[in-house]
Amino acid sequence: MISAKVILASASPRRAELLESAGVRFDVVPGHIDETPLPGEEPVPHVLRLAREKADEVAAREDGRLFIGADTIVLCDGEIMGKPRDDGDAARMLTKLSGRGHQVITGFAVFDRDRGRSISRAVTTQVFFKPLSAEEIAAYVATGCPLDKAGAYAIQGGAAYMVERIDGSYTNVVGLPLCEVVAALVELAGE
Amino acid sequence: MISAKVILASASPRRAELLESAGVRFDVVPGHIDETPLPGEEPVPHVLRLAREKADEVAAREDGRLFIGADTIVLCDGEIMGKPRDDGDAARMLTKLSGRGHQVITGFAVFDRDRGRSISRAVTTQVFFKPLSAEEIAAYVATGCPLDKAGAYAIQGGAAYMVERIDGSYTNVVGLPLCEVVAALVELAGE
Repeated sequence: MISAKVILASASPRRAELLESAGVRFDVVPGHIDETPLPGEEPVPHVLRLAREKADEVAAREDGRLFIGADTIVLCDGEIMGKPRDDGDAARMLTKLSGRGHQVITGFAVFDRDRGRSISRAVTTQVFFKPLSAEEIAAYVATGCPLDKAGAYAIQGGAAYMVERIDGSYTNVVGLPLCEVVAALVELAGE
Repeated sequence: MISAKVILASASPRRAELLESAGVRFDVVPGHIDETPLPGEEPVPHVLRLAREKADEVAAREDGRLFIGADTIVLCDGEIMGKPRDDGDAARMLTKLSGRGHQVITGFAVFDRDRGRSISRAVTTQVFFKPLSAEEIAAYVATGCPLDKAGAYAIQGGAAYMVERIDGSYTNVVGLPLCEVVAALVELAGE
């Protein structure tokens, strides 16, 4: 589908799986940037900036033509949820998500180094959790899965049964809005 | 979570994976029933009837306490889409789904044989496809994936990038509305 050399600037195995499922051939080179939010930075500008910085940082040092960066956050009642500090923090986040809706926002950037063009976009999905019991939260925290996930959960694993419904892109919640990313790759590679 | 013996009356590996992800222990015993719709049967009564018949058929011949049956259909512009007859039929279905919304309906039944109680429910999810090119359809049909799937696609594989967004339960589109099925198991097992 895309013959240009594609580099995924992300260490997330979930993002790599998604891109693979679409039949895109690519190499993985994780980007290393400072992810601290700027003072007063809003969620959408934040994920867009990090996505672009990840793509740019890898493009500056690796071979390839199309560089993909992405950043995902969970937003609940005004709180930006990153990865939990520890099990207690994970349980606190899941307690807050219980029985209500939240937003998952992924920013992505595709940088075409050959032509100096880039496409970037932020995609938002609404996710609604069922009410969780203390036992359900404790059992999920005990699996260790929450620790490296923004918002303390991954929608495709042991938390799948907690999600009543979503409104928007599912792959966006996993970490990469696949429909939009593939469209950007096709647009840039096809010119 | 559930100590009663659970039997999944379905041959679908995707349903088994979902149930496993929720930490439910179960055995798989596919049900064998006639899946032909009754004259004039509407979609929701149809999937509910098949789900119940699958659970009941297996409960009549196997050990266990909680028996789960399920049936999934794709509904697009009044057409109930089952599994495609061949590659040409798969391409026809995908062409129809292209650039528009359709509904995925899963009926499930959980039959508690010990107490003679059952819970059944049909869950509907709206799924929106991006516009597909003839090349995209041909490439997906060539993978062979569409042939054993209702509506000629599986949301979690090579068609994931075709899905712009959904409104409702994601696991319902995969084949089992996990949140609702787990709630039914807990309700029946907990009494």
